[in-house]
Amino acid sequence: MTYDVAIVGVGMTPVGEHWETSLRDLALEASQNALKNAHFSPNHIDGLVIANALGGTLSYQNHISALIADYIGLRGIEALRIEAADASGGLAIRQAALMIQSGIAKTVMVLGVEKVTDVVGSRRNTGLASFTDVDYEAAHGSTPTALAALLMRRYMHDYNLPLTVFEGFSINAHANGSKNPLAMFRNTIKRGKFADAPVVATPVNLFDSAPEGDGAAAIILTSTENAHHHADSPIIQLIGSGVGTDTLALHERKDMLFLHAVNLAAGRAFSQAVKNPQDIQVLELHDSYTVLSALQLEAAGFAPRGEGWKLAFDGIIEPAGKLPISTFGGLKARGHALGATGIYQAAEITLQLRHEAADNQIPNAKVGMALNLGGLGGTAVAHVFERID
Amino acid sequence: MTYDVAIVGVGMTPVGEHWETSLRDLALEASQNALKNAHFSPNHIDGLVIANALGGTLSYQNHISALIADYIGLRGIEALRIEAADASGGLAIRQAALMIQSGIAKTVMVLGVEKVTDVVGSRRNTGLASFTDVDYEAAHGSTPTALAALLMRRYMHDYNLPLTVFEGFSINAHANGSKNPLAMFRNTIKRGKFADAPVVATPVNLFDSAPEGDGAAAIILTSTENAHHHADSPIIQLIGSGVGTDTLALHERKDMLFLHAVNLAAGRAFSQAVKNPQDIQVLELHDSYTVLSALQLEAAGFAPRGEGWKLAFDGIIEPAGKLPISTFGGLKARGHALGATGIYQAAEITLQLRHEAADNQIPNAKVGMALNLGGLGGTAVAHVFERID
Repeated sequence: MTYDVAIVGVGMTPVGEHWETSLRDLALEASQNALKNAHFSPNHIDGLVIANALGGTLSYQNHISALIADYIGLRGIEALRIEAADASGGLAIRQAALMIQSGIAKTVMVLGVEKVTDVVGSRRNTGLASFTDVDYEAAHGSTPTALAALLMRRYMHDYNLPLTVFEGFSINAHANGSKNPLAMFRNTIKRGKFADAPVVATPVNLFDSAPEGDGAAAIILTSTENAHHHADSPIIQLIGSGVGTDTLALHERKDMLFLHAVNLAAGRAFSQAVKNPQDIQVLELHDSYTVLSALQLEAAGFAPRGEGWKLAFDGIIEPAGKLPISTFGGLKARGHALGATGIYQAAEITLQLRHEAADNQIPNAKVGMALNLGGLGGTAVAHVFERID
Repeated sequence: MTYDVAIVGVGMTPVGEHWETSLRDLALEASQNALKNAHFSPNHIDGLVIANALGGTLSYQNHISALIADYIGLRGIEALRIEAADASGGLAIRQAALMIQSGIAKTVMVLGVEKVTDVVGSRRNTGLASFTDVDYEAAHGSTPTALAALLMRRYMHDYNLPLTVFEGFSINAHANGSKNPLAMFRNTIKRGKFADAPVVATPVNLFDSAPEGDGAAAIILTSTENAHHHADSPIIQLIGSGVGTDTLALHERKDMLFLHAVNLAAGRAFSQAVKNPQDIQVLELHDSYTVLSALQLEAAGFAPRGEGWKLAFDGIIEPAGKLPISTFGGLKARGHALGATGIYQAAEITLQLRHEAADNQIPNAKVGMALNLGGLGGTAVAHVFERID
């Protein structure tokens, strides 16, 4: 099958610590931005898919699909929430596309929203640890960051590499984030300063790990036919998508340094899109930890095993390189709004392919990809988008 | 559009207090029962949709779609979790059907699982209250039961009715549950004893409100063509489905005694199925509270406004009546496994239409309906199934 689905509107809030803004108000802001961007009104929307990871865990608010539908002016509409840790956003886009593809909806809003500042300290860590295998990992005190540290140490050991090979990922993310008004961190990281950053969980330091933040992002999907009818600008079409899963627990994986879920998801998306890694001109990957960036580049076919880091080391991932990544700052600098991250990625790819990315524009981008992970790669979602002039 | 989707396997655990069984083990048991029932092996399954309401809130385990996929023998498969309080199950069936309808999957398992006995007391109540509007309802101390009490009192006041008019719902549910080996409560309720039950929140008493319990239920959906190919028994086809939403907060509704989401969902499902209420021979509705049963019968078109209670009073909802409901005990006696309830309903309808319901069989049932609610009706999902001989 081929998709017949296009993105016709995007809206985002800044990612950050929005202490004064509730979950529903973040959602409202993003949804209104997306409607305005699409020149749509609420009565154009037939369905609402919410991506949210921790509403039930941190804010004790479940059932937010109906709650938000009502709050953003869509009372009565079909609405659901999808959760798979920080891969919620990518999965929500997938299901929304199927609603259109199957004919039950013409136009669907996909809205990712996350509110982490309702709690601080150990309760927030309990929330983040809920992305791992709680009985076998979190119960022993491990967190996603601690598990990323195990992965990173194993990577450095197996391939005999120093910590500094990861430097390029953070420098690129922060350089790009510095030009994005919605980014959580807009400071740049000086080359050579990476290894001096305070350690979070050896060897992961502050520059390796993305900050979680509050935020909301919305995209509006419609049938390609409807998109052509409404838009005077080029159409950004979803041409391929794939989902893969793996064990949550790292110790259950035969080969910890191969992200099997990413390999499955990317393979399925490339196959459907009839594209290969060489066709991708802009890539938003899930850089929650630098080691995960390297491993994603390898598992998705952008680099050989053990050589993902070279794409950062050689500048290939920078805006002027062959495979620009994290072009608005990525999770690292734009900020990681957990369940909303997959929607931020799709919105950013849309801006790139529309050539509306302002200071973050990758010249002439026509084909882009988003890779969205849950936890340490228990879930992976890949989407390929193409500009149709 | 018409659906081209059928149920080819069902599996359930008993609903109850499974103190010794974890969330993933409950899921495993139901999934194995469903595979066995369908005569399928795990490699027949292309996708897994999990329905779960409170894993992230009570067990601090999110991301259970990949976790359970791996644990039940489906590592690598496309998997997601859907949550809309206790309407999660119905919504999961809807999205799984769309996966098949759109052509991206041939066979999908829908697995509802809930584990409430990880916590007791006020923490469990916080979880249940997460189905309501937390900022405006739960923050003031209200729970779903307290809100149901407001609804019930209003119903009794507006229609000038005594408490005892609700008696028939509970008597029917427990009579049916007494014949179901998977039911949480198998005792019967004697006529006339209803009003003596201990009060939970005036006027809601123990016989009005369904008990939450641990449990898991799975159904296997496949294309109708594939179902005909595999099965020697009759095909149980999904012929209509609909979703509606409403405000979570009761005080935001213009008319508290009209379940607008149910009206939308049922209307959409009937329309797609080209059926009307008179065609339904067996109905599994969401009897979490007796007053909700009455209100659902009214909003879905089975009774005029203010007269839903009469269907219980006159015995129409009993197995020998014109519109049997809660035929395996319903939420009240089979037990309310929250996010899994919508899957229990679909599994039970399937058994009825296959004429495999043993002591709970409604003779010659060919068309059945499931109505699944989130909270006090913030979300409603309706499904219509038909036996194709």
